[in-house]
Amino acid sequence: MLKVAVVGATGYTGVELIRLLLRHPQVKITTLSSRQYAGEEIAHVFPSLANQIDTVCEELDLDALTQDADVVFTAVPHKTAMDVVPDLLKRGVRVIDLSADFRLHDVGVYEQWYQAHSCPELIRDAVYGLPELYREQIKGANLVANPGCYPTGIAVALAPLLQRNLIDPETLILDSKSGATGAGRSAKTATLFCEINEGFKAYAVGSHRHTPEIEQVLGQVSNSGIKVNFTPHLLPINRGILSTCYASVAEHVTSAQITEAFQDNYSDEPFVRLSPEGQLPNTAYIQGSNFVDLGWIVDPRTGRVIVISAIDNLVKGAAGQAIQNMNIMYGLDEVSGLDVVPLFP
Amino acid sequence: MLKVAVVGATGYTGVELIRLLLRHPQVKITTLSSRQYAGEEIAHVFPSLANQIDTVCEELDLDALTQDADVVFTAVPHKTAMDVVPDLLKRGVRVIDLSADFRLHDVGVYEQWYQAHSCPELIRDAVYGLPELYREQIKGANLVANPGCYPTGIAVALAPLLQRNLIDPETLILDSKSGATGAGRSAKTATLFCEINEGFKAYAVGSHRHTPEIEQVLGQVSNSGIKVNFTPHLLPINRGILSTCYASVAEHVTSAQITEAFQDNYSDEPFVRLSPEGQLPNTAYIQGSNFVDLGWIVDPRTGRVIVISAIDNLVKGAAGQAIQNMNIMYGLDEVSGLDVVPLFP
Amino acid sequence: MLKVAVVGATGYTGVELIRLLLRHPQVKITTLSSRQYAGEEIAHVFPSLANQIDTVCEELDLDALTQDADVVFTAVPHKTAMDVVPDLLKRGVRVIDLSADFRLHDVGVYEQWYQAHSCPELIRDAVYGLPELYREQIKGANLVANPGCYPTGIAVALAPLLQRNLIDPETLILDSKSGATGAGRSAKTATLFCEINEGFKAYAVGSHRHTPEIEQVLGQVSNSGIKVNFTPHLLPINRGILSTCYASVAEHVTSAQITEAFQDNYSDEPFVRLSPEGQLPNTAYIQGSNFVDLGWIVDPRTGRVIVISAIDNLVKGAAGQAIQNMNIMYGLDEVSGLDVVPLFP
Amino acid sequence: MLKVAVVGATGYTGVELIRLLLRHPQVKITTLSSRQYAGEEIAHVFPSLANQIDTVCEELDLDALTQDADVVFTAVPHKTAMDVVPDLLKRGVRVIDLSADFRLHDVGVYEQWYQAHSCPELIRDAVYGLPELYREQIKGANLVANPGCYPTGIAVALAPLLQRNLIDPETLILDSKSGATGAGRSAKTATLFCEINEGFKAYAVGSHRHTPEIEQVLGQVSNSGIKVNFTPHLLPINRGILSTCYASVAEHVTSAQITEAFQDNYSDEPFVRLSPEGQLPNTAYIQGSNFVDLGWIVDPRTGRVIVISAIDNLVKGAAGQAIQNMNIMYGLDEVSGLDVVPLFP
Repeated sequence: MLKVAVVGATGYTGVELIRLLLRHPQVKITTLSSRQYAGEEIAHVFPSLANQIDTVCEELDLDALTQDADVVFTAVPHKTAMDVVPDLLKRGVRVIDLSADFRLHDVGVYEQWYQAHSCPELIRDAVYGLPELYREQIKGANLVANPGCYPTGIAVALAPLLQRNLIDPETLILDSKSGATGAGRSAKTATLFCEINEGFKAYAVGSHRHTPEIEQVLGQVSNSGIKVNFTPHLLPINRGILSTCYASVAEHVTSAQITEAFQDNYSDEPFVRLSPEGQLPNTAYIQGSNFVDLGWIVDPRTGRVIVISAIDNLVKGAAGQAIQNMNIMYGLDEVSGLDVVPLFP
Repeated sequence: MLKVAVVGATGYTGVELIRLLLRHPQVKITTLSSRQYAGEEIAHVFPSLANQIDTVCEELDLDALTQDADVVFTAVPHKTAMDVVPDLLKRGVRVIDLSADFRLHDVGVYEQWYQAHSCPELIRDAVYGLPELYREQIKGANLVANPGCYPTGIAVALAPLLQRNLIDPETLILDSKSGATGAGRSAKTATLFCEINEGFKAYAVGSHRHTPEIEQVLGQVSNSGIKVNFTPHLLPINRGILSTCYASVAEHVTSAQITEAFQDNYSDEPFVRLSPEGQLPNTAYIQGSNFVDLGWIVDPRTGRVIVISAIDNLVKGAAGQAIQNMNIMYGLDEVSGLDVVPLFP
Repeated sequence: MLKVAVVGATGYTGVELIRLLLRHPQVKITTLSSRQYAGEEIAHVFPSLANQIDTVCEELDLDALTQDADVVFTAVPHKTAMDVVPDLLKRGVRVIDLSADFRLHDVGVYEQWYQAHSCPELIRDAVYGLPELYREQIKGANLVANPGCYPTGIAVALAPLLQRNLIDPETLILDSKSGATGAGRSAKTATLFCEINEGFKAYAVGSHRHTPEIEQVLGQVSNSGIKVNFTPHLLPINRGILSTCYASVAEHVTSAQITEAFQDNYSDEPFVRLSPEGQLPNTAYIQGSNFVDLGWIVDPRTGRVIVISAIDNLVKGAAGQAIQNMNIMYGLDEVSGLDVVPLFP
Repeated sequence: MLKVAVVGATGYTGVELIRLLLRHPQVKITTLSSRQYAGEEIAHVFPSLANQIDTVCEELDLDALTQDADVVFTAVPHKTAMDVVPDLLKRGVRVIDLSADFRLHDVGVYEQWYQAHSCPELIRDAVYGLPELYREQIKGANLVANPGCYPTGIAVALAPLLQRNLIDPETLILDSKSGATGAGRSAKTATLFCEINEGFKAYAVGSHRHTPEIEQVLGQVSNSGIKVNFTPHLLPINRGILSTCYASVAEHVTSAQITEAFQDNYSDEPFVRLSPEGQLPNTAYIQGSNFVDLGWIVDPRTGRVIVISAIDNLVKGAAGQAIQNMNIMYGLDEVSGLDVVPLFP
């Protein structure tokens, strides 16, 4: 059994990690750390976990935690993560970090969008944990930077087309809509029920911190510098991100080539589902699962393709993908613990 | 024009008062006080008010505020209210207090359910502002204690039957369900979108502070000491309270007598609507309005009557009823500023 | 492997049966019948099932279906069920019927609340499939009448107290609130999104067809004729029923005795969770799972106990309980296929 | 008093017309027609209207209806409208048609996207009822084609920039999200509560019938043939459309010019609100009102501008704009009956 610890267990990503890890046949949860709820049973913080786990949350004690763990998930905010991850690695555990701190390869870009980085040397060692693109590198990684929720859905949607130069990388417009778990579990007026319910808005337009991450991963697959318009919106639902991605189709590219690209890349991927013709993804159909649902339409009137992806932001956009990465790192069946039929309705 | 000030303008009750007062033909809003947003335009705090009002929120300055006001709505939490209301009254304005501080006639009961009372002498002067029961007293009041949201819907539902001894006062079970605006606008984890959405729970069972208020008003109309079971629940909607009230029908009382009681009390009431036979209230049908919708079923199998009332907790349960009280206090048309068709859907 | 067929696979109960059966280690789904979607892939009707199952829905063909099935779930409306179940049983399969047709032991009561019954002789053979009360009888049953969603939550809530005469059976008031999947998947104006969203109402007050079922099961455990007030309400959420049950505590009964009763009955039950003191059930905490969460408060002021139960109406209230019954009938581990951690949020 | 009839009174647009017309000081509702609910009181169909109106719905009787009406709102589906509108006009009333039948100036385009047109000669007489662009023409119109909900929000968002050639008309990408009232009130499985709630999807991608209408109005203001990508999505809320519009900024155009364009066009418009810097529109802030809220961001990294508009699809996107048109046609104050403070939350 793999011994697993979670640092930052009481956010929405934390509880989702626990939900999934509890049914992972090769995993044993050893430690749950939480600053805010130290001393409290996790099942008291989240009564959904009652009768499932009797672990008590603890203050972070690096030595104790690492002595009883093979792999650690860090589910804490950026900046907090970079203070913890080096100390974890030094103690010989492998780390899957769900923050943004090790995702950007260029520390300069990181510092421009976030703040100063305290351990830039670690960035080189980190592997960007998007299995559909970097499965081989993930296998040997000691530090996996688990991708952001928005970049995950967008990269899976566009990589096949960019890799084959089927679309013009200068024309990318990425209009994303996320459920409210994406906004986290800390108490703020802006995320109260009555502020979000029955409303819909864009936020951080032109300035969201996932922008450089999206540009990095899309730039890499297309082998070009890419600038995108990325516009996140807040949906009055709990889970799910739908990204509507627009790009101009390259000259002489046919609709069949686009379909072929998706099929070539993804027909063997365990967690990518291609919508049959006439259907498009809906966040309602991937709830609780690690799937990316993909659909696309080529519009001959404008010469653009619209690619739409749906993920559960807490699963493929966070906890599920982190476990997928763990499975790859440890040579386990990639779907182990993630073989979930989505909940509908 | 009546000059009106609002103390505590930036909670959900505050913004609702402003929404309604802005269309009240005999009212001019003179001052909006808010500790948290002092110095900010109210329309910046609530962009729904953009282009409607350019007032800037202020720290509470009693002298300035009262010099430019005839009547003051205090929409602050209990305990805060009792610190402010005496000073307002001393300065010669009339006060409609939306907190719980002046609703309970018995200071002992107040102190048992809340905390020590700093101005018990004022309790005597306060009139409980439920127009359907106390219209005459409200006319001359200098201090109106605006009823709680739950007690409003329940008292209107049961008063006609208790007044006529048609039901047994010892058998009252009041099962209420409230939208989330009732939980206020301060930032708490428990009222985040994702904690309330797609969930439903009871809270404060057997201990909610509206219990003694309900017992007081029902006791008064029935001329007896009444103990009730009152169970509030939290609905994942913005507005609305539905109360399902159970009582044993007194011996030999017919269904027709019950119907008659409601018709006698309410056929001339401007804000009470009796559901036609075969229909029952739904919170969706009173949104944004000052209506109480009432329906009832006598169950011959059990000898109980079930009376159901629906109100918009922010209107008839708070701001709307406060304005109705103001209209009565100043001899204005009682529906002035409140003549709103509910928004559906 | 147990061969399982589902008759009526394309309602909300049908898709939930499929979701759970697909992860049941001892089950193989052989046939899915659906009048409306015959000829269509089930994964096309419910894209949540994409890549999980490639079964095509069929018109009901009793011979073909039973030749390839050991057990059949009938998830069709009452009246339709009684036309199908006898023919299934004749062909030698065991049947778990999710309709109301075989739940009421007294055909007279059935015909009073529903309509004429076409095979009253079968009623005798049917076992009411509430494992917490009738586990032994279920083992040998050929026909299990799967309980209604409301009766399930209410019976589990009250049985321990009624069995021990801790409450007065004449005082039961059952105020239930259900998510909208309970209203089914057929197209009606009343269940459109905009008719339910942001609203809340009671329905079928005093006349809901689950009333006699509740009275039957509670009457049986208390060994007395029971008449209840049962008031269902419609919640603007997908899944979940919360029932708030009121009863007068019998004389000299203590709060400790009540707690003990729950613990005695349920500490070994795999799907009943007793809320720790200070917590109460919330439908948000049982989503997708077969749990019944129970909490209670004794109110010394009124001498009543309030017992609150939360279930997922599609799981413990329908598909999950049906599978639990199947597990019992076939001597499988009772939690097989049902060992799900609830999804939160 | 203007005598007003509504044909098709029992859809969501119909009930919204009634809600607003009931508080219009210069209007008297004379007839409400409804095929489905003929003979029923409108307040029985929509209990929100109880105590507000006692009109009974009637089968459409053209002679009776026009004898008692100056102006008729036709709130029926396209194709039905074109069968009714000519007969209304012949009888001497003015018509505001809320369907799509008279919006497209080119009958060939209409027939390509809809179906054959039965009275193409009337198209010439129809005025496209978007007051912000065509106020003068509306004044004298006998037939106003009330704009579609999506085109309204998009045209108001982009007209100022296209009129001044500040953006490249070949680069328009319009990503819109609509509340579920936009899907209408007829009973369909796809619009049931549980199919929409907690989900989000795009629909009719590349093929939505509002596309040619958007291209017509934007083409007209920019004096060029325009092809757009328009992608509608379905939001799990009742009311509101948010459109996120992308365009490449023309060379040498500054951010200040863009701001100026919006201010020049809209500072005197009664129903357009420009978001202050740092704020962006939210559908929650315009509920129940006729406002268009506009915000924009110029992204210097990509050279694109993102313009975001929010409207209530039932008000500015349908009933409210229809009444605004009526006010203009009859020389009334343009905000008469529409002077509503949005409901928040």
